[in-house]
Amino acid sequence: MAGSEFGTIFRVTTWGESHGKAIGAVVDGCPAGLSLCEADIQAYLNRRKPGQSRFTTARAEGDQVEILSGVFEGRTTGTPISMMIRNTDQRSRDYGDLMEVYRPGHADYTFDLKYGFRDYRGGGRSSGRETAGRVAAGAIAARFLESLGIRVRAYTAAIGDVAVDESRFSWEEMEKNRLYMPDALAAGRAEKLLEERMAEADSAGGIVECRIWGMPVGVGEPVFEKLDANLAKAMMSIGAVKGVEIGDGFQAASSRGSENNDHFYMEQGQVRKRTNHSGGILGGMSDGAEIRIRAAIKPTPSIARSQRTVTRSGEERQIAIKGRHDPVIVPRAVVVVESMAALTAADMLLLSMTSRLDRIQSFFGVPVSEE
Amino acid sequence: MAGSEFGTIFRVTTWGESHGKAIGAVVDGCPAGLSLCEADIQAYLNRRKPGQSRFTTARAEGDQVEILSGVFEGRTTGTPISMMIRNTDQRSRDYGDLMEVYRPGHADYTFDLKYGFRDYRGGGRSSGRETAGRVAAGAIAARFLESLGIRVRAYTAAIGDVAVDESRFSWEEMEKNRLYMPDALAAGRAEKLLEERMAEADSAGGIVECRIWGMPVGVGEPVFEKLDANLAKAMMSIGAVKGVEIGDGFQAASSRGSENNDHFYMEQGQVRKRTNHSGGILGGMSDGAEIRIRAAIKPTPSIARSQRTVTRSGEERQIAIKGRHDPVIVPRAVVVVESMAALTAADMLLLSMTSRLDRIQSFFGVPVSEE
Amino acid sequence: MAGSEFGTIFRVTTWGESHGKAIGAVVDGCPAGLSLCEADIQAYLNRRKPGQSRFTTARAEGDQVEILSGVFEGRTTGTPISMMIRNTDQRSRDYGDLMEVYRPGHADYTFDLKYGFRDYRGGGRSSGRETAGRVAAGAIAARFLESLGIRVRAYTAAIGDVAVDESRFSWEEMEKNRLYMPDALAAGRAEKLLEERMAEADSAGGIVECRIWGMPVGVGEPVFEKLDANLAKAMMSIGAVKGVEIGDGFQAASSRGSENNDHFYMEQGQVRKRTNHSGGILGGMSDGAEIRIRAAIKPTPSIARSQRTVTRSGEERQIAIKGRHDPVIVPRAVVVVESMAALTAADMLLLSMTSRLDRIQSFFGVPVSEE
Amino acid sequence: MAGSEFGTIFRVTTWGESHGKAIGAVVDGCPAGLSLCEADIQAYLNRRKPGQSRFTTARAEGDQVEILSGVFEGRTTGTPISMMIRNTDQRSRDYGDLMEVYRPGHADYTFDLKYGFRDYRGGGRSSGRETAGRVAAGAIAARFLESLGIRVRAYTAAIGDVAVDESRFSWEEMEKNRLYMPDALAAGRAEKLLEERMAEADSAGGIVECRIWGMPVGVGEPVFEKLDANLAKAMMSIGAVKGVEIGDGFQAASSRGSENNDHFYMEQGQVRKRTNHSGGILGGMSDGAEIRIRAAIKPTPSIARSQRTVTRSGEERQIAIKGRHDPVIVPRAVVVVESMAALTAADMLLLSMTSRLDRIQSFFGVPVSEE
Repeated sequence: MAGSEFGTIFRVTTWGESHGKAIGAVVDGCPAGLSLCEADIQAYLNRRKPGQSRFTTARAEGDQVEILSGVFEGRTTGTPISMMIRNTDQRSRDYGDLMEVYRPGHADYTFDLKYGFRDYRGGGRSSGRETAGRVAAGAIAARFLESLGIRVRAYTAAIGDVAVDESRFSWEEMEKNRLYMPDALAAGRAEKLLEERMAEADSAGGIVECRIWGMPVGVGEPVFEKLDANLAKAMMSIGAVKGVEIGDGFQAASSRGSENNDHFYMEQGQVRKRTNHSGGILGGMSDGAEIRIRAAIKPTPSIARSQRTVTRSGEERQIAIKGRHDPVIVPRAVVVVESMAALTAADMLLLSMTSRLDRIQSFFGVPVSEE
Repeated sequence: MAGSEFGTIFRVTTWGESHGKAIGAVVDGCPAGLSLCEADIQAYLNRRKPGQSRFTTARAEGDQVEILSGVFEGRTTGTPISMMIRNTDQRSRDYGDLMEVYRPGHADYTFDLKYGFRDYRGGGRSSGRETAGRVAAGAIAARFLESLGIRVRAYTAAIGDVAVDESRFSWEEMEKNRLYMPDALAAGRAEKLLEERMAEADSAGGIVECRIWGMPVGVGEPVFEKLDANLAKAMMSIGAVKGVEIGDGFQAASSRGSENNDHFYMEQGQVRKRTNHSGGILGGMSDGAEIRIRAAIKPTPSIARSQRTVTRSGEERQIAIKGRHDPVIVPRAVVVVESMAALTAADMLLLSMTSRLDRIQSFFGVPVSEE
Repeated sequence: MAGSEFGTIFRVTTWGESHGKAIGAVVDGCPAGLSLCEADIQAYLNRRKPGQSRFTTARAEGDQVEILSGVFEGRTTGTPISMMIRNTDQRSRDYGDLMEVYRPGHADYTFDLKYGFRDYRGGGRSSGRETAGRVAAGAIAARFLESLGIRVRAYTAAIGDVAVDESRFSWEEMEKNRLYMPDALAAGRAEKLLEERMAEADSAGGIVECRIWGMPVGVGEPVFEKLDANLAKAMMSIGAVKGVEIGDGFQAASSRGSENNDHFYMEQGQVRKRTNHSGGILGGMSDGAEIRIRAAIKPTPSIARSQRTVTRSGEERQIAIKGRHDPVIVPRAVVVVESMAALTAADMLLLSMTSRLDRIQSFFGVPVSEE
Repeated sequence: MAGSEFGTIFRVTTWGESHGKAIGAVVDGCPAGLSLCEADIQAYLNRRKPGQSRFTTARAEGDQVEILSGVFEGRTTGTPISMMIRNTDQRSRDYGDLMEVYRPGHADYTFDLKYGFRDYRGGGRSSGRETAGRVAAGAIAARFLESLGIRVRAYTAAIGDVAVDESRFSWEEMEKNRLYMPDALAAGRAEKLLEERMAEADSAGGIVECRIWGMPVGVGEPVFEKLDANLAKAMMSIGAVKGVEIGDGFQAASSRGSENNDHFYMEQGQVRKRTNHSGGILGGMSDGAEIRIRAAIKPTPSIARSQRTVTRSGEERQIAIKGRHDPVIVPRAVVVVESMAALTAADMLLLSMTSRLDRIQSFFGVPVSEE
């Protein structure tokens, strides 16, 4: 089944394997007239690039994006935007011995049973490298949203059990450290934790948080196409994500109605909320407040430590994953989370344009019906 | 935008408002030949019916389902199954004063801005009553799955901060108590907690957990249509859900690779996993183990306690929600979670049939290609 | 597979069998604020009702539509509009002997092989009665289009080889005669032809033409979602349709470029076309001229004359279809064609709103980017 | 809106402009295990390549396809297959003067109004070159169908008013002449007709016919997703197509029931039809007979003859299209029609696998329910 598409109106199709010729994405449905160039996309891709710190893989991937269609004289034309990144580092030899063995925590086993065989080179399609297509597309979605005054921004909220402290929260700090943590103290502790894990041939997980500002009220559809439902799908579709929260998330479960309800008040003629336990979404629709999403990311499954597993032919075996692997993928997942949030927000924003007859009449220049 | 459909192959469309003439659902794409009658669906609907205990609304809704199409001589025909439940209790007068006021924690405000006005009677489309359509459809999905040896079952894992203790877990107990908690001690404590909340004119939230057994390996599509991604959307599309976890969920974030990876081993010629931190899903595909999903449910927003809010015309106001409202919706949400899980599982199972050429060749009776 | 849905944003789901309890449709995605009542829909349904003339079946079907949801205080709310028509005439006995025999020209055989069995009462889901749901939904689409100044209108262009003569074309005449032919002379001849066919226990086919006026320029998407592509699908999805043309259709195949190209000119500051061979669509997008679609309808397959066929169990057999059957379905198909055209136009109009960034910026009240 | 995708399970996304860097397609949902290499696709692309005869453009486009993903060790992996064709001949200068003028019969005007501006180089996205992506994808669909014993084949049925005579029909002849006409005499006459048109600076249209053999009975879904409905959409989505017929098409409209109904009979235990007026489709589902589709193609709009038109700024103007243009596109459209038919058939075949519970139970190795 076709499973590499995301979105209804603003849609991305990604393609490519870790060690194939190239990876890429096609964005279809991006409105015409948006100024766009390769550098806009490259800036996002650089944020997920490996080799940025001692906690990320040393693979020297250039990750240079090429726009092949859909942009003319510096602006999007409304037709599909095809983007390609050539894989320059295709050292298949490193992975040859993984052809037969199912790595614990990876999709080797499920891929083999689903498809009968698999491209075993570096994880093939199930590699984290697949997210490059998401990020390239997300860069366009984010740019589109910005042209409407909407901003999306993610950061590392926790690595292992080291969490950001709200009292020390700083966006500036977040840009400075390589873990994308908006809290210098927490970042320092997280680095220490990661060094320990590396020493132990082990790995860590963490939490990425994402915020969206400037969303008009009423984006998202009641019932199945709720904004939060689509954000949850978007997040959970990222390889290592095992949990998603909107607003207070699981804390809401142990809260009480009188605490959890956000009270409305008026400010300069506008409806506002005193608190934001809902995370900016009520009944599946944006309520005008900051949208808050959290994604739980499992520890990197590739560890150098010996693990027990089985082979394709049903033999039990010990395995120790060779080569350099990130002891944590959380920092590199930040831009992926941001991209998926942007893609979801862009699509649902466009879908929200058809909800009211009076606005549709205005759009087409027809006198608005009086009732 | 059309937002009341769920699923690609096995698809449900729900319709209806809390105080309209009726509510219902159309299930399209259910395979032909499944034995089905109204009693099969009624059994599910009865589990979400109000008025079952002192913690649920007294509204005397018969909730009698009528099958209008798609079933002939006791079996599904492969054509759309239309189901309708007449609303017998349409006392609009109870809600008349809510026409102008935005209830905190409800979708009144977002509905009004999205659509320009709203059916204010009992929450209209955003009422919990909307879930009756999901449950009617879920009953069919569950029955279909059972015909393939797949079972889906949900229960109350926590109410407020009272959680089920794994050591006392009992499915039998779960059937006995009205909170659907598989732990008698926890259920007793939860009842006490709910009585306190009612006395305080307040409410509670909780957690519903769902398990799926018997799913073949390889159901779910890599990248965007992962099984867990669609389960997350399904869960988050339920009105009060604010968080979703698969397997260890947020706990995985603070775990380490060596703990979180499930090791494979062989048992009677089958690949098995020693642990199940992944919750039965690897790389977005079922891995043969029990599938585990958790959904966090916020406290009922309708509370008798006075709250501050605003009106449609922008005036600040105090509001106290009159009438009987459930101090907790978690027990009634159990069957809704189960239904959404069943709908997702049924759809993705059918979608998984097209992944391998050799199996397609067998299906159509063509000699399988040799390579 | 779910195959009873049509449309992306403005979507209809139909359900129901000829002799089941009821038939109906759910329209999801209709913008909020459209004034709508049952009489608006009934007017369309009356146009396809049987028993209107001696050429249509005598079945005394009330076809009274009931709106069950989605309309509040006389206006659409933006939520699904569920409509139901009870089947009052369920005389199963007339069709009992057709349980075993495959009627030539009908879907009995294909239904049986696809689903393993079928609801044989009156054709079940493959009955022409299925179109009632399309018409109920089409009535809403047409009303929505009218609120934007767009009109859709169909008529009988030919019955058998008796075609309307353009020189005698009259919309007034079309309303007067029961064949919906806008040419009195042709209508008279067609009546004679039908009487002959009835006398011979035979049937006739014909052509329905449909026109759309007032469509803004640029509706329809290049490549696969062309306006004409979706109109063609809409038409061909009607049971008896075997051919579709846009503009000059098959005549264009034998024309030459210098004749077939429509020349542009200016009129009062507007771009106009001198001719309309294209039928109002260029490159898959509306070009501002009248949209013209033609659908070829095959002769009614149910004829009293004896035909050779086979049974479920593989025996050869003679069959003569008993009961009264229309010798032609073309007049009743007119409103079905109009409904499908309206549904397609409504959906593609809404989809066209997202093509330009400048218009999206205006819609959301954001200053338009200068380039 | 995203409009460059086709198919639900077996899906293609095309991208690229006539004079951009490259054009291409992504095929998602192709089952794993199909043997595939670039030569398989190249063979199809060569059939639509320009410069093959004196009636097709001289543009020396290599049209060399490159597979970038989804194929491993000579077989499809079940993941997206990305294909790219670099545009080697990007002489933008030839088209510079068309920036301002709307060519009659082309999509220049509608593109400009829909998107606010357009890539005017060689027609941009509305160029016939867009079909290269369809053909690359169609080659894969055709190969998949062949692995199941299903064949798709198209040919030129008419050029202008010169039609193939059934009595002289020869597939061998069709392969020999450059017009792909299976009738040597008609091909000779058509060549003469084309020479005349070229001499007159004019162009011709024609008809392409396509046949599908070996389709199992029951492919296609009743109501909206009929096999013929999707074939009609597929055909009409091709740039110059203005009409589509299934089986007898428009001739059925003037036929009578007793002639048009195909009688069933038994042959070696199989149900067969004596005639095939239905074109292999009954009630929207394949009936086991040869599937026949016809597409009417308009004359090439680019003619050297002077035509009247307007400019972007609203001035009237004369225009004569310079450069070499095909006096007819029908021969090059043959493989495009074949490709779209193959894509539709592949998708609907896969969708048909979920119609019966007993077959699903067999597929998953579960004992079939007895009723």
